[in-house]
Amino acid sequence: MQPLRVGLIGLGTVGSGVAKVLIEHPERMTHRAGRPLELVRVAVRDVQKPRNVSLPGNILTDDPRAVAVDPSVDVVIELIGGQSPAKELVLTALEAGKDVITANKALLCAEGTVLFTRARNAGRCIAFEAAIAGGIPVVHVLGQALAGNQVTAIEAILNGTSNFILCEMLDRGESYEDAVRKAQALGFAEADPAMDVDGTDAAQKLCLLTQLAFGTRVTPECFPQQGIDTLDLTDLQYANELGYAVKLLATAKLVNGRLEMHTQPTLIRRARPLAQVDGAYNMVALTGDAVGPTWLSGQGAGQMPTASAVLSDLIDVAIGRAQSTFARLDLWGERSPVPVQPAEEIYRRYYLRFPVEDRPHVIADITGILGNHAISLASVIQHEAPEIDDETDSGTPLVPLVIMTHRTREGQIRDASVELNQLASVKQPWVCMPVSD
Amino acid sequence: MQPLRVGLIGLGTVGSGVAKVLIEHPERMTHRAGRPLELVRVAVRDVQKPRNVSLPGNILTDDPRAVAVDPSVDVVIELIGGQSPAKELVLTALEAGKDVITANKALLCAEGTVLFTRARNAGRCIAFEAAIAGGIPVVHVLGQALAGNQVTAIEAILNGTSNFILCEMLDRGESYEDAVRKAQALGFAEADPAMDVDGTDAAQKLCLLTQLAFGTRVTPECFPQQGIDTLDLTDLQYANELGYAVKLLATAKLVNGRLEMHTQPTLIRRARPLAQVDGAYNMVALTGDAVGPTWLSGQGAGQMPTASAVLSDLIDVAIGRAQSTFARLDLWGERSPVPVQPAEEIYRRYYLRFPVEDRPHVIADITGILGNHAISLASVIQHEAPEIDDETDSGTPLVPLVIMTHRTREGQIRDASVELNQLASVKQPWVCMPVSD
Repeated sequence: MQPLRVGLIGLGTVGSGVAKVLIEHPERMTHRAGRPLELVRVAVRDVQKPRNVSLPGNILTDDPRAVAVDPSVDVVIELIGGQSPAKELVLTALEAGKDVITANKALLCAEGTVLFTRARNAGRCIAFEAAIAGGIPVVHVLGQALAGNQVTAIEAILNGTSNFILCEMLDRGESYEDAVRKAQALGFAEADPAMDVDGTDAAQKLCLLTQLAFGTRVTPECFPQQGIDTLDLTDLQYANELGYAVKLLATAKLVNGRLEMHTQPTLIRRARPLAQVDGAYNMVALTGDAVGPTWLSGQGAGQMPTASAVLSDLIDVAIGRAQSTFARLDLWGERSPVPVQPAEEIYRRYYLRFPVEDRPHVIADITGILGNHAISLASVIQHEAPEIDDETDSGTPLVPLVIMTHRTREGQIRDASVELNQLASVKQPWVCMPVSD
Repeated sequence: MQPLRVGLIGLGTVGSGVAKVLIEHPERMTHRAGRPLELVRVAVRDVQKPRNVSLPGNILTDDPRAVAVDPSVDVVIELIGGQSPAKELVLTALEAGKDVITANKALLCAEGTVLFTRARNAGRCIAFEAAIAGGIPVVHVLGQALAGNQVTAIEAILNGTSNFILCEMLDRGESYEDAVRKAQALGFAEADPAMDVDGTDAAQKLCLLTQLAFGTRVTPECFPQQGIDTLDLTDLQYANELGYAVKLLATAKLVNGRLEMHTQPTLIRRARPLAQVDGAYNMVALTGDAVGPTWLSGQGAGQMPTASAVLSDLIDVAIGRAQSTFARLDLWGERSPVPVQPAEEIYRRYYLRFPVEDRPHVIADITGILGNHAISLASVIQHEAPEIDDETDSGTPLVPLVIMTHRTREGQIRDASVELNQLASVKQPWVCMPVSD
């Protein structure tokens, strides 16, 4: 049978993994795809650089556009990341009549509408299993395996770096800074981990999942987003004491015909599968109206897990499955999408921690303000503070006051915050984290 | 577009669920499938029986064969279970030019070769997502989403009834019999739960998974199979004390080019995801050479989860995806399959519990026999027994001696068993369960 001729743009970590499997396991890939998958052109930045995958002679080029327009290429795999020149290369490839496979979540999140429309107009497809959760096949599951369902909720741990750091902090009693250094040393975090730890990466992935599951086009600006980079070990420990784990949780769920969405460090009751996700692993918890709750977990990043996702897309393209799936995906579709709920209406429980001066009336001041905003309290912890000698000690020591609220609107919390910030006895920063029940 | 005309054989629990979604959500299904999915003929045992799904007039029949041969039917969904007349009906439908969707694991396990060959010869496909793990889309994941991988290990909890019973026993300190009654009262177990609790159901599902992942045709007779119906609460409690959960675990993994296979109650270290599967849920842990370890979990049975699986197959058939996937599945394929490792060569750790008489030399006798068979011990527990007054008590009381071995061959355990059974101080039945590391 006619081979599928593959052009690869980008031979970094994931690209090398893809090339490795294509070159080392040609029989397996031919069997699975029904025809040979032949790597015919590869664009790299520096053709002279030594590589640990041995490519057939003369297929390397330093001109990515040459791959996108090469008439001997049937499908282009874009693995350079970022928005430019990735966008131009994908558009060029589509217009040159090639199907496209990409792992580029930032590009899809920002330019999905343009790219998908162009692909449909050109009669081509874009496959992107690798763009969301690496080795967890959530695009296949949402687009095909759960296609009989209306998805009602997605809750997901989508950033392995953040999850690793949170686990390290709690397990070893380490500060955020120490845990980041460890993640970098072990290769779980980039030299500049900003996009991982500030929640951007998870928020972009959530946008793609939301478009798949609900047909709603969102960008990270449409919903509350917060990273783990301001978290304090103290809060992980208090949460643990209360029976919760803190995870960077990305949520999109149907509430009265609207979408509740947020990506935030969130308290999750310890018995729940999401609370038990360890180290650099990811998990996607999906609820469908027929299937009920389901959980998918695995490595959400890394060379071979991400390569596995790219390869499944490649096999789908070879078989023709990617093309028929693409035609039916609710992505950037024309159906009436579910609107996003305004953030102030989000209704849930909260964990609050106030560093307060250990003196009379402080608890009454804080709980009084919460009460004035109709925020009802589920529990209050203030551990006994050491007795101090007023004659010798200078200044009033700070003690943590930890409060779990009953369900309340985000708007009430915001309004109360304004007044709480004016209390002289409450020191900054005080902490507010949502709870997922 | 041309509707896909659906014939349904069997309107029991799952069949009603499928009909319900087709009738209540026609727009959703049309959008997902690209064309209307029209229920045109339904075979039931008694057309007069009142049903809680309202079907269009005159589509009911009590002749299943009429559905299988009906020229107005494009695809037949077989949901009556059992081998006969299901086999004849599936063959008839295939020969009448219809694609077939089935949830019938017993049929596929026993007659898969015949059915799949006939389907290929007739140019039709058989889709069976619902036959293995209900709402967990393991057929889609193995057949498509992980298609770039060589699967190296499958470990799975595939019987929700057994898992529910095991959880109830440990959590509430209940006997096996009491937990079974509770499972029946809650609808998690059939009036006759034999196939669930004796391991047959899980073993049949493992056979299908093994054929998908390794191309190896196996039947439950090819590997050790044991159910939970002989388990004692004592062993769940000792395992718990040692840091393990006991689960009915179905395993197929590559070991030196051969398949280690078994379906047995197995000790699993409590921190592992498989040990944390609660109640009637299922989990499939898959390891692939690229993707690494992944976990899928959800409801493995029940009306709507299983209906969800049938509906995804139906959408795949409507789109043409099922047909292209079927052509490429390693099921009952022609490639050289991985051979199954003889049971006596299986190499793993074991949990042993001996009810022994509390008198001198008993431990020496047992550990001596194990030592003679080169079985090395990792730990031994014998809790202190109450002091007894030899003058007044009649008979010697029994105390449990619990041993965890290091890795050893199943053959050594079998050989040692012969001698252990001859020890007068060891009472029957003594217990031997494998450990999954």
